[in-house]
Amino acid sequence: MNRPDIGTVFFFVNFEITILGCGAATPTNRHAPTAQLVNVHDKFFLVDCGEGTQMQLRKFRFKFQRINHIFISHLHGDHYLGLMGLISSMHLLGRSKELHLYAPPQIREILEVQFRASETRLSFEIVYHNSLVSEKTLLLEDRTLEVYGFPLKHRIPTTGYLFIEKERKRKMEKDTIRRYALSVEEIIALKNNQDVNREGGDVLRSKELTSQPVPARSYAFCSDTALDQKVIESVAACNLLYHEATFLHELATRAKETFHSTAAQAGEVAKQAKVCQLVIGHFSSRYTDEKPLLDEARSRFPNVLLAHEGLVLVPPVPHKAD
Amino acid sequence: MNRPDIGTVFFFVNFEITILGCGAATPTNRHAPTAQLVNVHDKFFLVDCGEGTQMQLRKFRFKFQRINHIFISHLHGDHYLGLMGLISSMHLLGRSKELHLYAPPQIREILEVQFRASETRLSFEIVYHNSLVSEKTLLLEDRTLEVYGFPLKHRIPTTGYLFIEKERKRKMEKDTIRRYALSVEEIIALKNNQDVNREGGDVLRSKELTSQPVPARSYAFCSDTALDQKVIESVAACNLLYHEATFLHELATRAKETFHSTAAQAGEVAKQAKVCQLVIGHFSSRYTDEKPLLDEARSRFPNVLLAHEGLVLVPPVPHKAD
Repeated sequence: MNRPDIGTVFFFVNFEITILGCGAATPTNRHAPTAQLVNVHDKFFLVDCGEGTQMQLRKFRFKFQRINHIFISHLHGDHYLGLMGLISSMHLLGRSKELHLYAPPQIREILEVQFRASETRLSFEIVYHNSLVSEKTLLLEDRTLEVYGFPLKHRIPTTGYLFIEKERKRKMEKDTIRRYALSVEEIIALKNNQDVNREGGDVLRSKELTSQPVPARSYAFCSDTALDQKVIESVAACNLLYHEATFLHELATRAKETFHSTAAQAGEVAKQAKVCQLVIGHFSSRYTDEKPLLDEARSRFPNVLLAHEGLVLVPPVPHKAD
Repeated sequence: MNRPDIGTVFFFVNFEITILGCGAATPTNRHAPTAQLVNVHDKFFLVDCGEGTQMQLRKFRFKFQRINHIFISHLHGDHYLGLMGLISSMHLLGRSKELHLYAPPQIREILEVQFRASETRLSFEIVYHNSLVSEKTLLLEDRTLEVYGFPLKHRIPTTGYLFIEKERKRKMEKDTIRRYALSVEEIIALKNNQDVNREGGDVLRSKELTSQPVPARSYAFCSDTALDQKVIESVAACNLLYHEATFLHELATRAKETFHSTAAQAGEVAKQAKVCQLVIGHFSSRYTDEKPLLDEARSRFPNVLLAHEGLVLVPPVPHKAD
């Protein structure tokens, strides 16, 4: 696994996307089908689960049971066929914790017919959530994170996902607490950007006693989709955008017919959405050399990476003065 | 791919088994789940189709569309979860030829619910054959080959498969035809081991004018199964036996509970069935070193190989005098 060189941006731990597969539908020896593991503050979210995802998780040494939420974009095989195997392995390995599955509702019948055929009674509960939304919709929220689904434009109903950290409180040095003998209430107020009036007329200013919080970051996942204004709006200003780039633009007609994007279109989405960084994937099996796809996307938007299996991405944030 | 050293036996082309996967249910980095490609006279039969089989076929450079018959042993995930992906890829690659699928009948619902969800109308026909048999049963026959199914003893209904070449005619040198000015009828009779009485009293003896035919060979596939006398009878005297050996014999109780075999039991089956050669597979993920499994099987039967991905096997036949 290697980290990309993304220039003048911060690195933070605890918001990492690992590409497990970034090929398109027909298999090649170069790529696995779509799957990604999104780690936000050590919570692990699996996004799509193409055939062989459990082997990819093994290869990159991720523990299956750390995954409590799976998000499936749509029910084309290269995006979900690894699900039944992964769930079976979680069962064989003795999982008891419930698993939240965000997917088109037909997934339930697909899994249950297979549980019946194999006479499997799962050792844990699957909590099914309908992933199909007609507009950008909050699907999951916890203390530090929100996950939205938004519609993509594909041959069958397909959902993109957006992971957003919640705004954090301003940072305070431990020294400051001691120096000013701050109470708990005062610390909370100052971290929340509120000034504190003390008895005797002293004013503690939040701006002086705290510093800029770690900026909230966001990651958007778009696979598979044709170019669509609504998609651009859904991913606007996200820090990192994964966008499919199945074809070179010389095959734009083929892309349109199959509801896919060209690398140029992926670059155009990144540009219009004003994201910080773009990573492209879902490469057609016809391309043995992917450099032209990268070059084409870069002709529209400068900060582009090619996905590959094992790539670890961190959503970049621009430098800001305090 | 490497050929085993199997000592004093013939090699023939055109009856080859390639191991695509020989792991058990929980995935490892060492093995793919069960799948094998059986090539008999350049007809390709896929036996089991665990998750990732299409990637294994790509890796070992087999063409998907050469496969016209698929045999599934049972509906535990590690034996069939690659089927939907392989069929989807055959479709995406434009297949038109029908595909014969021998499997438990629930496979049809499993596939069709997924075709509906992905809005796939296959470009070719799947001909479904019920693989579940209560005794050894001829499932497929052509000019040169017979394929039998036979019941294994597992937690859910499971079928073993036996591939048998038909007896060939005796061999005749081209020279012989010219030398004796043989008619077509005479050639057929002599090759069929019949002597020919010519006008004038000459007798042409088959034994003198022809030689022993290439011996018919057989290959039996047993995965997954507990030790069972009926299985031994079904694979009796086959040239090559693939038999599961999930556990070492120290876990014989676990093997019995899960309807699997130990390596010692696999050796015992080979011995009692008087096969020429045994290859063991379906190794539990707990064994990082498989040599003890090999040693244990060899303690019961001398001619044993360990399966591994890419291994190419040819059913050995003992030397016979003409």
